[in-house]
Amino acid sequence: MNTVDIIIKKRSGAELSETEISYLIEKYVGGEIPDYQMSAFLMAVYFRGMTEKETLTLTNEMIKSGDTLDLGAIGGIKADKHSTGGVGDKTSLVLCPMLAAAGIKIAKMSGRGLGHTGGTIDKLESFPGLTTNIDGERFIKQANEIGFVIAGQTARLVPADKKLYALRDVTGTVDILPLIVSSIMSKKLASGADIIILDVKTGSGAFMKSEDESFELARQMVALGRNAGRKTAAVISDMDEPLGFAVGNALEVKEAIDVLNGKNAGNLRELCLTLGSCTLLEAGLAESEANARETLEKCIDNGSALKKLADFVRAQGGDERAVYDTSLLPDAPYKIDVKSPHKGYVKALDAETVGRACIVLGGGRETKDSKIDLSVGIVLKKKIGDYVSENETLATIHAQDMAKAHEAEKMLLECYAFLDTTPQKKPFIKGIIR
Amino acid sequence: MNTVDIIIKKRSGAELSETEISYLIEKYVGGEIPDYQMSAFLMAVYFRGMTEKETLTLTNEMIKSGDTLDLGAIGGIKADKHSTGGVGDKTSLVLCPMLAAAGIKIAKMSGRGLGHTGGTIDKLESFPGLTTNIDGERFIKQANEIGFVIAGQTARLVPADKKLYALRDVTGTVDILPLIVSSIMSKKLASGADIIILDVKTGSGAFMKSEDESFELARQMVALGRNAGRKTAAVISDMDEPLGFAVGNALEVKEAIDVLNGKNAGNLRELCLTLGSCTLLEAGLAESEANARETLEKCIDNGSALKKLADFVRAQGGDERAVYDTSLLPDAPYKIDVKSPHKGYVKALDAETVGRACIVLGGGRETKDSKIDLSVGIVLKKKIGDYVSENETLATIHAQDMAKAHEAEKMLLECYAFLDTTPQKKPFIKGIIR
Repeated sequence: MNTVDIIIKKRSGAELSETEISYLIEKYVGGEIPDYQMSAFLMAVYFRGMTEKETLTLTNEMIKSGDTLDLGAIGGIKADKHSTGGVGDKTSLVLCPMLAAAGIKIAKMSGRGLGHTGGTIDKLESFPGLTTNIDGERFIKQANEIGFVIAGQTARLVPADKKLYALRDVTGTVDILPLIVSSIMSKKLASGADIIILDVKTGSGAFMKSEDESFELARQMVALGRNAGRKTAAVISDMDEPLGFAVGNALEVKEAIDVLNGKNAGNLRELCLTLGSCTLLEAGLAESEANARETLEKCIDNGSALKKLADFVRAQGGDERAVYDTSLLPDAPYKIDVKSPHKGYVKALDAETVGRACIVLGGGRETKDSKIDLSVGIVLKKKIGDYVSENETLATIHAQDMAKAHEAEKMLLECYAFLDTTPQKKPFIKGIIR
Repeated sequence: MNTVDIIIKKRSGAELSETEISYLIEKYVGGEIPDYQMSAFLMAVYFRGMTEKETLTLTNEMIKSGDTLDLGAIGGIKADKHSTGGVGDKTSLVLCPMLAAAGIKIAKMSGRGLGHTGGTIDKLESFPGLTTNIDGERFIKQANEIGFVIAGQTARLVPADKKLYALRDVTGTVDILPLIVSSIMSKKLASGADIIILDVKTGSGAFMKSEDESFELARQMVALGRNAGRKTAAVISDMDEPLGFAVGNALEVKEAIDVLNGKNAGNLRELCLTLGSCTLLEAGLAESEANARETLEKCIDNGSALKKLADFVRAQGGDERAVYDTSLLPDAPYKIDVKSPHKGYVKALDAETVGRACIVLGGGRETKDSKIDLSVGIVLKKKIGDYVSENETLATIHAQDMAKAHEAEKMLLECYAFLDTTPQKKPFIKGIIR
């Protein structure tokens, strides 16, 4: 087999065989196929796409490049969740303890990642002392005892994805559907859960800007998960504006705790209940969506979800008191209110710009080695559809540095747009694919 | 400026600015842009193409990557010629001495190259003692005295092309029109001639298989050459079957000498007269095509073209006696006649397979480091349209090794196809673009 022939075959639009895809991934991970051949191949995939069969094969070959987790020693039904990412996305911090309280085992790996804030692991580190450096034995034990454990992703899980992603990032080949599908699903499948719940965002602040693309991504991931024998479902939700009100690591932890205490936090509670209901239905632990919601709402109302979070924090070495007293979480010294220069209804609130403002404050990573400040961020006071008087507070900036705060202020003023009349409300949950 | 942004811009189909193309080439040649970014870019060019303006900018930036030749010290009108390459293509060996005899200065660089036979330089080395390792001073002197000099290409001429071509070769990005145009034209423009004559082949044995693509390539190269202020013309000719009868280095030199002695050698004489006429017309040394042909035919008939070849061979250290006595050229020990298993008219004679048979015999390079045997090759006795009796000789194989000869014999038998009736004659010269 010859790499150039495979590149040219893909370039021509023909379907690659299993042997060809297997050759590509194996030799690439082994260092025999150089980056410059792989990047030409990836660009050809941008233009020619991949059939579902090719994507499935690619995913399986990527999984084979590393270790897979065996969760067999954990009793009960294990669920994993993935979000395609957005601004203010603290869903896992609500969903996981809520599901664990409802009897689903959450034994998952999470990442740090680049972005407007850190990943779930960074956010969890807002709890003083908490570690995600959990070894295999402790991982299984904690999953069995508490039903909820999160560990940092090991380098041995899908190394092909790490190598491919680093290359895609610098060659203009990130936003390619079959590559996104295989990247996400290889890691989820390798992580061994029975149920995979996919939180797919759509809109200006999401990876997928168009609703069509987001549905197609969700559809392909669900099909692939089911094809691999896993219960898989996806919820497509709006990311034109940030999720909830808080953007920033500790600030998002606080907001997640608020929701576990019964608050709505914009659409955050709604999204977590929708994702959670899908999970209970897939698990066979609810007869209907209504029944599933009732179970989950009860876990919030009776405090068991919040207690599950506290148990989890303690088990992973963190200070569980911060769950009940959020003033123990990292807190920035400066709080600056951003005042509205206009009056009217908020017509748009560009999520991407809010996210970039959080990076300016030091709350996100621009490169792999950037250090994150967990205390900083933005708390939005006004969201799309809200009425604002002139000089009313639009958002509060939490900063360590006044110069950065002013820079973030300018950005936030730019991302709000106003109307004289109430803007039409768009549905938040765009669809569910099961 | 950011390389990924440029890749994505090209991927989206937008036109790149001069600054962007300049950045790409300069940083790539300087080693700051890695191969894996350039190959992704090249694959995007495959799908999106380049505008004429982009191709011109690319060509100019490639030229800037190295030295350019100044032929100002050579008196008269300087012409250069490029062939897109084919099987049995010994055109330069006839055209250059003929034009020099007609008063055009030929001061050119040639390459060795990969292919079915060696390049012009390899072929010229069939003359015992001849060297193309000619320094600048000697180059100018010989051009002024004899009007005909050929030197090996220096590494300092368009280094961007060398680096890009090596990458294209291993990433499935060779056959991309704007990249071919810029590769050929950057070298021709950097070589400094007043007139550039392009010998564009079309058909199964050519780089460009379709006539449409060949015309488009010719059109773009001529436009680019004129845009750069050079007199440029292109002749598009058939390469469904090999050019002339001989395929192999010394065998092709013999055939070129035959043509300079007044023979036709299939369509070889016709092609050289057409290319030569274009040159004289561009140079203003002829009033009409008929007048130009007359001048060139006279140079053959009066022996001045052949004498020019002899002068050239002597000036470059070669044994000029071989020009008049071709038995002094390298000669292979085994001559095997390939007999026809059928009778009928030759319907097709696949040039590509004939070329591969020559490689099998040792006459071409498979890799840069392959050593070429100048003596081996194939002399076709029957070409398209010829009638063949059963057991009549189709071709004669010249070999150093009987096993290889038999392998080549099998290949040659495969590349002939027969008909009961005379096949329709297709025109050999497909078009001229001036």
